[in-house]
Amino acid sequence: MKVTILGNNSALPAFGRHPSAQAVSVWGEVLLIDCGEGAQVQMQRYGIKWRNIWHIFISHMHGDHYFGLPGLINSMSLLGRVAPLHVYAPLELQEILDKILQVADTKLSYELHFHPLPSESSVLVDNDKFSVTCFPVEHRIFCHGFLIERKTKGRKLLPEKCREYEIPAYFYERLKQGENYEKQDGTVVKNEWVTTQGPSAKRYAYCADTIFTDSYLPFIKDVDTLYHECTYLESDADKAAGRYHCTARQAAEIASKANAKQLLLGHFSSKYRDLEPFKEEATPVFANVQITTEGTAYEI
Amino acid sequence: MKVTILGNNSALPAFGRHPSAQAVSVWGEVLLIDCGEGAQVQMQRYGIKWRNIWHIFISHMHGDHYFGLPGLINSMSLLGRVAPLHVYAPLELQEILDKILQVADTKLSYELHFHPLPSESSVLVDNDKFSVTCFPVEHRIFCHGFLIERKTKGRKLLPEKCREYEIPAYFYERLKQGENYEKQDGTVVKNEWVTTQGPSAKRYAYCADTIFTDSYLPFIKDVDTLYHECTYLESDADKAAGRYHCTARQAAEIASKANAKQLLLGHFSSKYRDLEPFKEEATPVFANVQITTEGTAYEI
Repeated sequence: MKVTILGNNSALPAFGRHPSAQAVSVWGEVLLIDCGEGAQVQMQRYGIKWRNIWHIFISHMHGDHYFGLPGLINSMSLLGRVAPLHVYAPLELQEILDKILQVADTKLSYELHFHPLPSESSVLVDNDKFSVTCFPVEHRIFCHGFLIERKTKGRKLLPEKCREYEIPAYFYERLKQGENYEKQDGTVVKNEWVTTQGPSAKRYAYCADTIFTDSYLPFIKDVDTLYHECTYLESDADKAAGRYHCTARQAAEIASKANAKQLLLGHFSSKYRDLEPFKEEATPVFANVQITTEGTAYEI
Repeated sequence: MKVTILGNNSALPAFGRHPSAQAVSVWGEVLLIDCGEGAQVQMQRYGIKWRNIWHIFISHMHGDHYFGLPGLINSMSLLGRVAPLHVYAPLELQEILDKILQVADTKLSYELHFHPLPSESSVLVDNDKFSVTCFPVEHRIFCHGFLIERKTKGRKLLPEKCREYEIPAYFYERLKQGENYEKQDGTVVKNEWVTTQGPSAKRYAYCADTIFTDSYLPFIKDVDTLYHECTYLESDADKAAGRYHCTARQAAEIASKANAKQLLLGHFSSKYRDLEPFKEEATPVFANVQITTEGTAYEI
């Protein structure tokens, strides 16, 4: 499970950095979180394939988090997408998308399912591979964070061993669930002889944009990786609070309180060319911190 | 007078080419024609300053011609723009922009004046530096081309000669209008001694997107430079017609019939990586043709 940063700047593009967008890869699927302007070009640049995207999550209705979505939706259609696409976003986005498609006289080549985000925390997707939960953060307008949980896929098969013990393919799924196999002569093949421990569950939380607050801590407790906005440095803490954003130190404090294992920082103000001070400010509070760079895939 | 190509691809970004956008520089102002996704990043890349933009023209409501506009409008506000901005576009865009600003709770730092394009040809801007006229072309939806006329700014001063004849600075504007200067002792300084011929008027036409038709020829007659769409090659002439687009040969034919001096080709389908065949197809019909590349500034 990894997250590829497609855009880590706030508000507007600057210094080669783009507005918010990121691709979370989990069991072969890509979950797109936010979709700032230029996201589709960034996806091309960094090898994120739209065919692997089935779910897109938009945190809120500030343009730097969704202005790339209409173009991506259009392009998928022009490229002949057939698979349905699910968009989870504030209700107002549906009206905007509908209008954009209507005035262009566009009929998409695929089904676009729009799921309005509720005001409270809610499970948006839950299948045998992962779940996605939204939870309210505190921004100038209605805004959600997202928690993505990768589920274990059960035990991992050892193909050679399975062949050696002559286990039929139809039984493989049950092996993954931990069952033993009983041969026709009554011999039992113990599960641990033909499987090994599968990948463990992982939890990734995305918090952008938000003011510094404890309110969403319960939702991000003990995550493996937390991506948190830090639009400003502490020297601009007043500005951060006034605009419902965080500083690097505050983001580190949230990571520490949440007992996260790793902190990824992003959503930098375009007033900062050099991002090293963000690391210097966060590290004393939370040691395992990364200043994200676009195009980098971070292990979760 | 020159045009800098910011995007020359059709429909979707491909091969490093972006959706339609271009910046026409005329007497120190930049007129932005179409504003596909990523236009503001392209402007940063190629040194087009938003502070010089007062007028933006959107040809039609297909997303590859305007999805970069909401971001640009937002960014100008975040960067503290004060000067009013005029947008000329199909009426539907106003509703979309209003909604986008409303749901983000955004109050722009400047006045945004929206001018809906009429159905017929009309003069949109007319000042002492240039005029811009829209004219209907024939596309799948309501679509306009634009004609930009740079006006002469009168005669060009020869500063050394002006000093030599001791002409006071307040009289310079009248020199530009061709007047002679009469000294206090009655001596006449002839205009041609202290000025030279100013830049001549120039006419630039932009035609995208359109099917192959004679209908707009009267509007682009004798232009210095014609930018014309050529989404396809002749081998896809049926597809071009079916989608209300042109081929390279058809664009060349339009340029020839219009008696243009120069033809710039753009709006290439993303099915073509190599654009050399467009030049090969157009040249026999119209010799002075350029396959546009992004970031290049073409003299008009």
